[in-house]
Amino acid sequence: MSLTQKILNGDRASLAKAITLTESNLEKHQEKAQKILLSCLPYTGKSIRIGVTGIPGAGKSTFIEALGKYLTNLNKKVAVLAIDPSSEINRGSILGDKTRMEELSKDNLAFIRPSPNKGSLGGVSKKTREAILLCEAAGYEIILIETVGVGQSETVVKSMVDFFLLLLISGAGDELQGIKKGIIEMADAIAINKSDGDNIKNAEKAKIEYQKALHLLPKNKNGWNTKITTCSALEKTNIENIWSIICEYEKWMKDRNLFLTIRQEQQKQWIHESIEDALKKQFYTRKGISEKLIQIEKKVIEGKITAYQASQELL
Amino acid sequence: MSLTQKILNGDRASLAKAITLTESNLEKHQEKAQKILLSCLPYTGKSIRIGVTGIPGAGKSTFIEALGKYLTNLNKKVAVLAIDPSSEINRGSILGDKTRMEELSKDNLAFIRPSPNKGSLGGVSKKTREAILLCEAAGYEIILIETVGVGQSETVVKSMVDFFLLLLISGAGDELQGIKKGIIEMADAIAINKSDGDNIKNAEKAKIEYQKALHLLPKNKNGWNTKITTCSALEKTNIENIWSIICEYEKWMKDRNLFLTIRQEQQKQWIHESIEDALKKQFYTRKGISEKLIQIEKKVIEGKITAYQASQELL
Repeated sequence: MSLTQKILNGDRASLAKAITLTESNLEKHQEKAQKILLSCLPYTGKSIRIGVTGIPGAGKSTFIEALGKYLTNLNKKVAVLAIDPSSEINRGSILGDKTRMEELSKDNLAFIRPSPNKGSLGGVSKKTREAILLCEAAGYEIILIETVGVGQSETVVKSMVDFFLLLLISGAGDELQGIKKGIIEMADAIAINKSDGDNIKNAEKAKIEYQKALHLLPKNKNGWNTKITTCSALEKTNIENIWSIICEYEKWMKDRNLFLTIRQEQQKQWIHESIEDALKKQFYTRKGISEKLIQIEKKVIEGKITAYQASQELL
Repeated sequence: MSLTQKILNGDRASLAKAITLTESNLEKHQEKAQKILLSCLPYTGKSIRIGVTGIPGAGKSTFIEALGKYLTNLNKKVAVLAIDPSSEINRGSILGDKTRMEELSKDNLAFIRPSPNKGSLGGVSKKTREAILLCEAAGYEIILIETVGVGQSETVVKSMVDFFLLLLISGAGDELQGIKKGIIEMADAIAINKSDGDNIKNAEKAKIEYQKALHLLPKNKNGWNTKITTCSALEKTNIENIWSIICEYEKWMKDRNLFLTIRQEQQKQWIHESIEDALKKQFYTRKGISEKLIQIEKKVIEGKITAYQASQELL
C-alpha cells in the first residue's frame, strides 16, 4: 500500500513519516513529500484549525491536553502541532518538552507532533501548513496549533488557522496588556486560565478588565466580537464553554461566507511566502555568487559604498 | 552649496531633507538620496549608536530626553531616531507622538527625527540605517534609536546599534520576565526606570531579581557582562551612571577589536536584507506576473496544487 493510502486510512506512523519528509531538506525527500501532498489534497480542508497562544506560564500544554481530551471524548479526532520560534540568540527551545501532554499522547484519537527542527520562523511555518494538510487527509477533524506568545509567531499562526485563541492568566497586570495589544487584537477568543481554587475571584476580575479593554479596541474586521471566558485546564472546568465558542464562531463565519474567504486569503499569502523563499534560494545558489558577495562585502566594509548600494550592484 | 555640503556643515534642515529623500519611494528621490549617501560615507561611522527599548509605560521618551539633555550638557551632539513597528492589524502607531521630548527638541545640539512613514518593518529599518549614516555625517556623536519592546523590532534594532539598552520598571512580574527573555539576552545593559519616591525600594528589589535572572542566562557571546542599574528619568538620577556604562562598554569592545567586527557583521546583514528586498521587487514587477499570479492562485484555491507547488510553477 502506498504511503498516501496509509495516511488516508489514518495510519499514524505513516502520517508522522510524511510530515518528516516535508521537513527534510533533501531534494528526493521533498519530491516525495510534494507527491504525497498532491494526492492528499482532495481530502484536505475539512478540519477546523485552531491556534492557541499565550504567555509562558499560561498553561498552554495543560489546556491543550484538557481541550484535546474533551474532544476525543466526543469521539473526535484531534491533531496537535507546535510552532516553536527559537530564541533569537541562543536558538534554544521556549516550548520545552512536549511529553507533558501525557494523557492525550496515549489517546488513540489524538496525534501529537512536536515542533519541527529549528530554523527560520518562515521555514517552520511552511512545514506546519503542510503538516495541517496531511493531518486533515488522515481524517483529523480538529487541528490545534500551539505557539508561544512572543510576538512574531502569532502573526504566523494567525495566517494559517481559522480560529485564534489567546490564553491568559490573572495578575499579569496592565503592563502586560500593553505588550499584548497586537495579539489581543488578533484573538477570536480569550480564555483566562487557572481559574481554580483561590484564584477564581482574580480570574473573574481579569475577565471583566479584558472585557473593558476590548471595548477600547477597534472591532474585528469580520465583525465578530471577541469572546472572553475563564477556565481551568487543571480542573477541566469551562473547557466545553470554549469549544462551544469555537463552534459558534465556525457557524457565524460560514453563514457569512467568510470561512472560506479567509482560507483563500491565507492560501494567497502562502503563495507569496513560498515565492520569496524560492527567490532567495535561487539567488544564493547562483554560480559564482559567493565570490561576488565576498568582493562586495569588502567594498562595503571599506566604506566605499553602502550595503544598499552593494545589493544594487550585485543584482 | 550642495545638500551634502550643508549636511557636513551640520545644517539640520538639510539633514532632515536628506532623510526624507531616503524614505521616498520615488525613483528620482532615491537616486538623489543614494548620491548624497555616497558622498557622505567617508564622514560616517564615528558615532556611538545606542538602541533603547522597553515595554510601553517604561518611560522611554522621558528617559531619552533625560539622557539626551545630559549629553548635550556635556557639549555632545545627539540625534534621536525612532523605529515604530506598526500594529499588525490596524497599522496604528504604538509610540504615540514624539513631541513629548519638549526640552530636547528645543536643544541646538539635538536632532530628533520621528518614525518614518508606516510600512514593513524591513522597510523602516533600511531607512533607519541610512538615517544613522546621514546623522553621523552631520556630526552627531551619539545616535539614540528608540523602539517599543514588542518582539520583532528589537532584533531589527540590535542589528544596527553598538549598544543595546533595555528599560524596565519594577512590578512587572515574573510572567513579563518570561516573555522578555529573548530581549534580556540581547541587552548590554538593563535600567530599571522610575526609581523615585515610594518606588525606590521596589526598583532596587527588581534590580536584584534581574541580576539573579541574568546569572541563569548564557553569557553574552562577546563576553561582556550585562550591567544592571536603577534610574529615574523623571528626577534625572543615575543617568550619568548609564552613560558611563556605555562608555565602559565602548572601550571594552574596542580593546578587544570587537567594536568594528560587530559593525562589519551588521553591514553584511544589511547587504543580505537589501538583496532580498530587491529580489522581491524584481519578481513582482516582471511583465505579465500579475496575470500569472491570478491564474495560479485560482489553481491553489480550487485545491489542484498546494501554495508551495504554485510558487515552484511560477518560478
